Amino acid sequence: MTAVIEATQDAGRGAAVIARLKAELGADIIKDAAEADFARHGRDMTNVMPEGIDLPGIAYPRTTQQVSRIMAICNEERYPVVPQGGLTSLAAGALADRPCLLLSLERMRGIEELDEAGRTMTVLAGTVLETVQVAADEAGFLFPLDLGGRGTAQVGGNASTNAGGNRVLRYGMMRDLILGCEAVLADGTIVSSLNVMIKNNAGYDLKHLFIGSEGTLGVITRLVLRLFPKPTTACTAVVAVEDYDATLQLLKQCNAAFASTLSAFEVMWPDFYQLGTTAVGRQPPLPHGYPVYVLVEILGTDPERDGERFEQVLGGMVESGLVKDAVIAQSDKQRSEIWAVRDSPGEWHQGSHWPQVAFDVSLPTRKIGDFIPYVRDLLLAKWPDCVTMFFGHLADSNLHLSARVPRDPMPEKEMEEIVYAAVGEWGGSITAEHGIGSVKRDFLHFSRTPEEIALMRTLKKAMDPNNILNPGKVI
Amino acid sequence: MTAVIEATQDAGRGAAVIARLKAELGADIIKDAAEADFARHGRDMTNVMPEGIDLPGIAYPRTTQQVSRIMAICNEERYPVVPQGGLTSLAAGALADRPCLLLSLERMRGIEELDEAGRTMTVLAGTVLETVQVAADEAGFLFPLDLGGRGTAQVGGNASTNAGGNRVLRYGMMRDLILGCEAVLADGTIVSSLNVMIKNNAGYDLKHLFIGSEGTLGVITRLVLRLFPKPTTACTAVVAVEDYDATLQLLKQCNAAFASTLSAFEVMWPDFYQLGTTAVGRQPPLPHGYPVYVLVEILGTDPERDGERFEQVLGGMVESGLVKDAVIAQSDKQRSEIWAVRDSPGEWHQGSHWPQVAFDVSLPTRKIGDFIPYVRDLLLAKWPDCVTMFFGHLADSNLHLSARVPRDPMPEKEMEEIVYAAVGEWGGSITAEHGIGSVKRDFLHFSRTPEEIALMRTLKKAMDPNNILNPGKVI
Repeated sequence: MTAVIEATQDAGRGAAVIARLKAELGADIIKDAAEADFARHGRDMTNVMPEGIDLPGIAYPRTTQQVSRIMAICNEERYPVVPQGGLTSLAAGALADRPCLLLSLERMRGIEELDEAGRTMTVLAGTVLETVQVAADEAGFLFPLDLGGRGTAQVGGNASTNAGGNRVLRYGMMRDLILGCEAVLADGTIVSSLNVMIKNNAGYDLKHLFIGSEGTLGVITRLVLRLFPKPTTACTAVVAVEDYDATLQLLKQCNAAFASTLSAFEVMWPDFYQLGTTAVGRQPPLPHGYPVYVLVEILGTDPERDGERFEQVLGGMVESGLVKDAVIAQSDKQRSEIWAVRDSPGEWHQGSHWPQVAFDVSLPTRKIGDFIPYVRDLLLAKWPDCVTMFFGHLADSNLHLSARVPRDPMPEKEMEEIVYAAVGEWGGSITAEHGIGSVKRDFLHFSRTPEEIALMRTLKKAMDPNNILNPGKVI
Repeated sequence: MTAVIEATQDAGRGAAVIARLKAELGADIIKDAAEADFARHGRDMTNVMPEGIDLPGIAYPRTTQQVSRIMAICNEERYPVVPQGGLTSLAAGALADRPCLLLSLERMRGIEELDEAGRTMTVLAGTVLETVQVAADEAGFLFPLDLGGRGTAQVGGNASTNAGGNRVLRYGMMRDLILGCEAVLADGTIVSSLNVMIKNNAGYDLKHLFIGSEGTLGVITRLVLRLFPKPTTACTAVVAVEDYDATLQLLKQCNAAFASTLSAFEVMWPDFYQLGTTAVGRQPPLPHGYPVYVLVEILGTDPERDGERFEQVLGGMVESGLVKDAVIAQSDKQRSEIWAVRDSPGEWHQGSHWPQVAFDVSLPTRKIGDFIPYVRDLLLAKWPDCVTMFFGHLADSNLHLSARVPRDPMPEKEMEEIVYAAVGEWGGSITAEHGIGSVKRDFLHFSRTPEEIALMRTLKKAMDPNNILNPGKVI
């Protein structure tokens, strides 16, 4: 990626700020430029910090009070702060793009309380997602957020980016999994809204300011997370249908039959299915040649019935002719093999569809079938050798598009212009789950109106008048 | 109720504002003091507008553009506006408490779109909740929000107060049922965020500013609502358990067995159970004498299995000794009879427990068992003849408390001080679902910290610098 370096701060000022922070918070908490490992804090999952940025240091607070002091000092000094979690972002939302203090939350980790009756867990923001998942599991619950970066991503980052992932259809986004939130404002004020109750209408629900705003309105320091009953059964199938209308019909019938146990409805178009199976030497679970493949999964709690019911419902769809072919996993091994097809983008870097430009967009579900040939044709009109792959969490309106033009370098920015403009025209969102960060900021206007962006700026100005909190990200 | 009249506007100014509005918007939209039916707009479900308020008129816009012009003019004139929906509030959030323009949304009604594939419905804010429920049902879906005022309440009011009701356990609050929102800001700016997608991380999620802020940050004019698969089975029981620990154990086992099909877990303590059955001549579904009664309900989609499974699970709990007695409804009639006990507060005005002071609080679920004797003793220490009734949506942390002191007038304010202070001490919320409005504003500090209230004021000031939108409500 590329980013414009806005060198609003001179190097001497940064050093002076670090010296002041170090004097007050101590050498354990504040590392200056000579001590800091900037390389470790300079990349996320797909982006690298632009070269030549003069960083004065990194803060590693252990407590909310220390975060508060750091913010208060930086606010007095008018010095930018970039909060960092586990750096698993795909949008460069936590990378420096100008001289700034990096504020790492990695030492603020730990589970403070697990309340079985209320099904809540109170955690520090720097706790790794997988740690939360394991603790929930050991207590007999499910914490449903799950994504590839689970071993590194921190829940504070998951919250500030409103992470999505594999189980949104059933359990919602990270926003839906949070009951309470403690955050530090730009001026150091600690706003502690550690609500543990499902119902609470006492005044404005402030946590939504911090969730999904990518660290631009506050630094999340603690969260109260919701826990769920652990499913005890999983039934997984791949089915083939004739066209997009049949896909929508399939979704409707799955919703009606399985209701909230439906936990995955992953649509794969033929190019994608080919690349995820035969192209990498994997036996396709269903033969090639069908227009649309769908991975369907339910997670239930009735071992006596769930498998039988799953087969009954899908069997009925085969009989009615809606489903042209189907395979139901008969073992955990078969279940993994089916998921491996859907998860095959993780293998693309070894094959011919690399490098590629990945898009994480959402569109009204009913339009996705028509949008695919529309955007494919737009890309082909410009680059006749462009190769596209489509797959998506369809029930969540989330379409993943991967496009590759065999040039070096790829015309990434032009490809993005074409795809994001099309998404905007069709009433979609330029980012379903990855967030805006710095890499999509210039495209935000395709998905949001001038009035919406003006209101975002009003909030930003009211809550961070000196523009020190992750400046230049999102808006 | 009582309210302090803050007469910040003189009567002449109101008449001048109305004249200006009428000149621009016409006599169809603007009714002046001579034409307006203030009585109809002067009461909600439990409160009446204070006497002696000099109101200049009422606006009945038909379009968002008209709402925008009304707000722009009132903002220029620095004249307060109180938005009104169906006036089913229990917190006086939409009643005038000073000279102001009443802005009724009642003409902005209608369903604009129902998208089967995306399971969304786009509606104008003044649409009556029941109209939305019926339209969803006719299209084969469920719109799950349900509450007593369904035939009068408007979805815009449901949104602005983040309404709760009967199915929160399974489907969440109104906030969870909204994907997109159009609102008019204090200065007349139309912010249209009519998102229809489950996943959308393109910038700040602005709808949460308007949901639950009771009309103090904007006037909601349109909503995109989520629809759900319609359940096809309902299984309902009343069970008796030995104490609060057993109640929590029952909840845990119901969660584990029924997961997201569990749709009601309504706890009734003995005084309440007595009042809702024998005291009104209703045959109790289970005999008196048990320490706690719980109404359990699941809503499913598997007619072949759900009833059998419900009986199996509850039967297992009887065998294990956790459940001391149980009755499962065998017909819709029996189901209604069971619900009638839970819904019996609607009959109290005919009996001896009237008048009473009702509290809608929430507390961490694990603490509710201890909180009940604590708050009962506090009230009895002050008024030895105080009678209390306890019941609640326990899985939602929501406890309803009704208290009566046989005096005329009842010491309502003192009773509220005692209960809300106790709720604050125990980490609860002074309003689980009814909202703050004007009647609980002075108690907000029991549930929210000074920093939280300061941040609410920062938002209010940024978005409504002239304090014209529902001034004096919430904060």
